[in-house]
Parts: sequence; C-alpha cells; structure tokens
Amino acid sequence: MGLELDFLFHPRSIAVAGASSDPQKRGHAYVDALLHHGFPGPVYPINPKGEEVLGLRGYTSVAEVPEPVDYVISSVPASAVLDLVDDCAKKSVRSLHLFTARFSETGHADAAELEQEILRRAQRAGIRLLGPNCMGVYHPAKGMSYMRFSKEPGSVGVLSQSGGNLNELLYVMSMRGVRFSKAVSYGNAIDINEADLLEYLAADPETSVIGGYIEGVKTGPRFMQALRDAAARKPLVLQKGGISNAGTRAVASHTASLAGSRQVWETALQQSNVVAVENLEDLGDMLLAFQFCKPASGHRVGIYGGGGGRSVESADSCENAGLTVEPIPEELRREFRQRGSELADWVSNPIDGSILPGTGLDQETILRLMAKSPNYDMFIVSASELWNADNPKSLARLMRSPHAFLDMAGELDKPMALVMNDTVAEHQWQNEFLAEMRRKAVEKGVPIFPSIRRAAKAMSRMATYYKNRETE
Amino acid sequence: MGLELDFLFHPRSIAVAGASSDPQKRGHAYVDALLHHGFPGPVYPINPKGEEVLGLRGYTSVAEVPEPVDYVISSVPASAVLDLVDDCAKKSVRSLHLFTARFSETGHADAAELEQEILRRAQRAGIRLLGPNCMGVYHPAKGMSYMRFSKEPGSVGVLSQSGGNLNELLYVMSMRGVRFSKAVSYGNAIDINEADLLEYLAADPETSVIGGYIEGVKTGPRFMQALRDAAARKPLVLQKGGISNAGTRAVASHTASLAGSRQVWETALQQSNVVAVENLEDLGDMLLAFQFCKPASGHRVGIYGGGGGRSVESADSCENAGLTVEPIPEELRREFRQRGSELADWVSNPIDGSILPGTGLDQETILRLMAKSPNYDMFIVSASELWNADNPKSLARLMRSPHAFLDMAGELDKPMALVMNDTVAEHQWQNEFLAEMRRKAVEKGVPIFPSIRRAAKAMSRMATYYKNRETE
Repeated sequence: MGLELDFLFHPRSIAVAGASSDPQKRGHAYVDALLHHGFPGPVYPINPKGEEVLGLRGYTSVAEVPEPVDYVISSVPASAVLDLVDDCAKKSVRSLHLFTARFSETGHADAAELEQEILRRAQRAGIRLLGPNCMGVYHPAKGMSYMRFSKEPGSVGVLSQSGGNLNELLYVMSMRGVRFSKAVSYGNAIDINEADLLEYLAADPETSVIGGYIEGVKTGPRFMQALRDAAARKPLVLQKGGISNAGTRAVASHTASLAGSRQVWETALQQSNVVAVENLEDLGDMLLAFQFCKPASGHRVGIYGGGGGRSVESADSCENAGLTVEPIPEELRREFRQRGSELADWVSNPIDGSILPGTGLDQETILRLMAKSPNYDMFIVSASELWNADNPKSLARLMRSPHAFLDMAGELDKPMALVMNDTVAEHQWQNEFLAEMRRKAVEKGVPIFPSIRRAAKAMSRMATYYKNRETE
Repeated sequence: MGLELDFLFHPRSIAVAGASSDPQKRGHAYVDALLHHGFPGPVYPINPKGEEVLGLRGYTSVAEVPEPVDYVISSVPASAVLDLVDDCAKKSVRSLHLFTARFSETGHADAAELEQEILRRAQRAGIRLLGPNCMGVYHPAKGMSYMRFSKEPGSVGVLSQSGGNLNELLYVMSMRGVRFSKAVSYGNAIDINEADLLEYLAADPETSVIGGYIEGVKTGPRFMQALRDAAARKPLVLQKGGISNAGTRAVASHTASLAGSRQVWETALQQSNVVAVENLEDLGDMLLAFQFCKPASGHRVGIYGGGGGRSVESADSCENAGLTVEPIPEELRREFRQRGSELADWVSNPIDGSILPGTGLDQETILRLMAKSPNYDMFIVSASELWNADNPKSLARLMRSPHAFLDMAGELDKPMALVMNDTVAEHQWQNEFLAEMRRKAVEKGVPIFPSIRRAAKAMSRMATYYKNRETE
C-alpha cells in the first residue's frame, strides 16, 4: 500500500531528450549525473542529429531506440514537448520527467493551455508525468541523479516543489552528514503531486525520515490525510513556501501554485504532528536531528556550555526553545562532592568548563554521571573553540574534549548534539579540523549545529515530535 | 564628556603580573598579544624569579620596575592579588586589570570578602580596577590586545561581561569583515562597570557602532540613562545574558551578577531604541549591518532571490522580518517591457534569476533600474550557488553575477546585503571562492549573511533603528 509510484524510482532504462555534448547545458548534466552515479541500466541520449554524448550512442528520437525505454527526461523546449509525448507513447514509456519549463508559471494563457494538452496526451498514453519545471529524481541506491551528489544512500526522503532548494538541501546537508533514500523535485505537479509522493515516502521501507518543501496543494483532503498518516509512522518535517503575502505572489510565478491560507496550513500541520519549519536552514537542521538522534524521552537537557558566557547563552537558548535546563539533582551533587574539591558545589547545569581546573572534576566525568541520571533526557555540548587556538597544536589540545564527547555519545542511550561553528575559517588547518570533527560526529551519530540557538531549537522540536506521537 | 575612562585605553607602559614563558599559560599569552599587536610602550613581565619572557626583561615585582607603570594585568592566583594591589600602589599604577578569577562568582563567602577587600585597597590607592574574572582590553589602534586578533582598527566598540563570548565575536566577526575600535571584557565589574564603559563608547570618536553583552547591571538608573544617550547618538546593539530562569542561575555562577527582571530589561531596551538581540549570532549580524550599511530610508526591499524556491523563501523571510516586499511599480514595468520580451511581465520582486534567460532582461539591469526607483529603500541579493558548480570554472561563471552586484553596491546610495552560505565546503577551491567573495564584499561595504532569514532580520532591524531615531 502506498508504493504505487515505485516504478518512478526503478526504471530499467532512461532516455534523455535534449541530451547535449555541451557541458553548460542541462541536457548534458542529466547524462553526466547518471553516469557519475553508476545508473545500472542503459542511458540513451536523444537529440536532433542522434549525436553521441559522453561516449553513449545517441538517437534522433525515443521511438528509434531499439530496446525498451521506461523513463524519459525532457530537456527540450516547451514547444517540442507534445511531439516528445507522442514519441514516448509509441515506446510505452512509463514516466516522463519534464525539466522543461515555461508553462503555466509564466502567467501566459497559451503556455497554460499547452501544459494541459501535454497532460491529456500523456494520460491517454498511460504515461505518468513528473513536473514540468523540476529537476527530477535523486535515488542514490539505484544510481539515479540529476547532478553529482553523494553516491551514498541513506534514510532521509525528500519531496520538494523547488529544484534549487532541493539542490541546496542535498548539498549542504550531505556535508553535514545527512544521507538520502530518495529525493524528488516535482515542480508544477500537473500529474504526480505532493500527495502521491508523500504517500510513497511514508510507505517506502528505505525512508525513515521525511522532509518536504511545498508551495501549493492540488489534493486538499487527500493530502491532509497523507500528512497525518505519514507523521504517525515517521518524523515528517515540512516547509510551506509562500506563507506571507509576498511569498504567495512568488509561488504563483514559480510553480503556478495556489499558496492557500496560512492559518489553514498551520492548523493542519500542527494537528498532524508535522514539524513545521519556516526556512531551509531549519528544514536541514530537523532532518539532521531526526536522522541521527535516538528518540528523546523528554525535554530535560544537560548542557556542557564551554565558557561562562556560552553557558549563560546556552541556558537562555534552551529555555527559550522549550527545553528544561534541569539543575543538578542532589544525588549527583553528592557524587560531585565525593570526587571534587570544595568548589564542586559551584558546578551547575550548564557546565561552565572554564571553572573546572582545580575543582577535582572534569567535563567528561560530569557528563558521564549526568548521562546515567534519570533526570536528563538529552545533552547539548559546545565545542566552538576554534578561535581560542593560534596554531594546530593548541587547537588539537582544545579539541580533546569534543572528541571525548563524541566517543561518549556512541555509548549513550540518550541523544546528544554538538555545537560547533562551521564558518569557513582563515587558515586551512582550521578548516581541516572542522572537517575531521564533522567526519567523527557522523560516524558516532551526533548532529552538529553551528549555533546554540539552532541546536536547542532542533533538539526541542525533535523531543516534541516523539512526545506527541506517544500521546496520540 | 564621557571620556573619563580614556586612560584605560592609552597606557604608556604595561606590566604583566604572572608573566610566564610557558606558551600554555595566560600569563604568556598576554605578553605575546602585546608584542604581536605592536604595543608601542614598554611591556614588563613580572614573576617570582624575575624571569625573561619572550625576550623581555622580567622583574620580581611591579615596584621593582625602574620606569613608570600605568597599567597592570594580573594573571596571578586570587590569593596573591592583595599584595599585587599594594605593589601597584607604590608605583602609582592607574589601572589594574584582573584576569584573576575565583572571587564572588564561586559562591564562597570568603572569596567574595577578598574581592571586596581588593576593591577597598585599590580605591584607597586611586587605582581603577577592571574585572576581576575578565580578558581585558582590545584596542588595536594602540596595539593593546589580550589575544592575537586583527591588527586593523575599525569603528565598532564592544563591552562584554563574558571573555569567551567576546573572543567568539571578535574572531568570527573579523572574518566577516567587522573591524573594532575598542573592545572590553569586564567580568565581575566590581569597579569599572557597564555604565562607565557604555558612556565611554558613546562619547568615543573612534566608535560609531556599539555592541554589548551584559549579564547584570550595578548602576540601574545611571545605566538606563546611558542606554538612551548612547542609542540616540550611535546604533547600540545589546544581548542581555540571563534572560531565562536557567540563564539567571547561570549568570550568578559566571560573574556573580543579578540578572534582573526580563520584563524590565525588555521595556528599557525598547524605550531607548536599543537593538535587543538574543544571541551572539544576532549580535554579530547587527554589528555587521550597522558597520557597512548606509542608513536605510525605510523598510521596502528589492530582492534578487536566485532561483524560484529561494525567491519564495526570500519573500516569506523578508515579510516575516517586518520588511515590505514592494511589487514592481508600473513605471518600472514599462521599462522592463521596452527592454524585454513578452515575458517581461513575468519578472517580479523577488527577482527569480532562473526565468530571465530569453526574456531580454538580466538581473543586473533589473536591479539597476530598481535601485533608481524611489519605491525601494534597500536590496537583498542571493549568491548561494556554490553547490550548483562541479568545478572552479563553472563556479567562476556562477559567481559573475554576485561580483556584478558587489560592484553595483559600491555605486548605490541605498544599503545592499548579500546572502551567501559560508559553511566550510568540501573542496578547498570552494572555500577559496568564498574567501574571495568575502574580501570583495568587505571592500565594497556589503554585509554578507549566511542565510536569507538572517539577512532579512538584520536589515529590517537596522531600518527600524534609524526610523525610530528619526521620529524621536
């Protein structure tokens, strides 16, 4: 149930209409991406002269290809699409992805009419349409992609009405350690739409977290039901594009979508236990948190703040984000006193690392004790100390403690997040330290957030999702 | 008037008590920082054996130094500070900066009593105290610093009750192009306090923008007056640390401060036209915006969104942040039509760059026309396309347009902000492109923000500050 669209992600062969040997053309990038990702079936370049592209034999039409063609990517101009549909019909093509744009989104009546005619002809021929005006499918396990992204498959599935936003999400979040099961940019959605894709990802066994960027909905009640069903099974994070007046105007000229009322959206998402986000930054943060974190049992957070000011800001940010900054319980205090000096009582939550030397306590011991306490549901630890080191040696010393936290995280049965600024640094050796820390965090399943605010917000919303799901 | 503290920033000579030849010690870093920044007067290392540090002759006490000593940095243990004060008194030292910590902030009564005794003795000797429990003064024009920061002076002045937060601000914001006039970490503030420093920075001709991180206030009514006076003269951005319950507890153990009521703070800041921020990220963003931007005449923004989805998100983020995403006025439409094809009417604000090819219009022409229109007060343009390029050559092509925007910004009499993701990238050539773009933006006076949300928020608050100041 729900996997009706499976054929879209498992074509045996793909033809690229408008394939070109010019590396600046999209019709080149589609062929390149399939080769780069090692698509296992045949790829057929189609262009007017049947020219070879990237070493692959070309054909002048889809119908000319001697073998079966399951999937066609269209990078031809809008005016050539009707002929392409007829061509696809002859070959019993199952899916036609229209990268081709300039249809209803232009606001021109004739372009909108052409779009409708394309839909009618495709439906008559039993061809399902993806788009138009979209980047298409990324399915790394099957070697399908439209750009050179990570080849490594993962568990996060994404539907996005914007191709550019999906590119940004795939690129930036891959660097931060997220790996994707399937991602689809679906544009104007004249046939395959948000409900089809959401139902599919909810049922897909490869997908355990779902993210979405949606501008408008074609299928009101069905989509609302799909939201509820999906969020009951898997964490579902959605950005609604076009929530403001100006945004509403912008979605009309982007994907010809009707944005819908802000209030209706917000109510629907909240009632369905969907994590609603306002921007791509938050969307990425939530996917990262859900991919890596064990479900939090509540909102009580133990914090290693780093210095004093950061500890204060950590406390403020966590409480503002809805987390409870739980004071050190008396039984832990006693343990601190046994191990530490008379200054042990000075230690509190957030832990200010700068006061520890000489107290007989260190941050790792304290965190390990807190991790065992039933009073804490999760941990947020700070490692943003890049600027306190003038050279690689002193930086290595400063990074000992974050490394120890990451080792600890692997053993914990509670979620932990690491805060570390990831702004491009002045020196390459600093960037390399960041990259190494990032690799280790991914290995240990710890999400890294570039600011306390973002860590606190993501971890709190993650806990809320699981709490709501439990009480439903 | 207001420059009473000027002596603190202009010592003729500095002694470092607790100076050490061990590079891991703070007493080493203070000497190193003064040498690195080229402090023009003599620097005297003081330690028990009178040992040389970094090639400078050492002394066993301040009193032993044969020349006058204006300023002393204390990196000795708390128990040694009373003797140090007596020693300073003999030499008629004017300022004693106590990096030394573990006083009232520990919560121990004897430590708090010691702190008071230090204050009494210093006052009797006419010595002004900075701290204790603080990093001290950064005044690059005068070669004063406590760490190796940028040597280049600028116009942003900062007071911070946290040394760690100030380090982060100086480091991260220097990379983003902010240059500082004077910055002071002032810790427990038993003598020199927030009001002294704020009054000074408000009067200081080197300072044209003020930022602050404050945990507690020693001087209620005087500080409130200083807030009003400062914000009426210069943009003033403040983060109040310890605004939550957990934060209130944390400030007590950090700088022994009384956090004060959230509501009182918020009201005071609002009534004084102070830009109140909740975290270091926003503090940095606002200082960047104020340093670079010409005062905005209003909140109407023209946006180059990049792709369609980013344009939608730009519209949503700007409107949510209080900006007005002004539609293209009819007279501009006419210009577009004259220059463009039948698709010219498709172009709107935000400008979706992906629809422009073939319309006869390009983003630079459109932005130049919008810049001349009285309907726009500011511009936010997106350049976050790093992920759309597989190699340096295609990246260079993608960066042509952001470069053109930066050139344009230099000629505009309206503020412009650039949005560009600054996450450390996979390849070093990508990081180098980011660095180059950053250098050029600094040269042209354009703030770069890593997300639309942050650009919109900072630009809107900047405009609000100037609007409020005008109507007062």
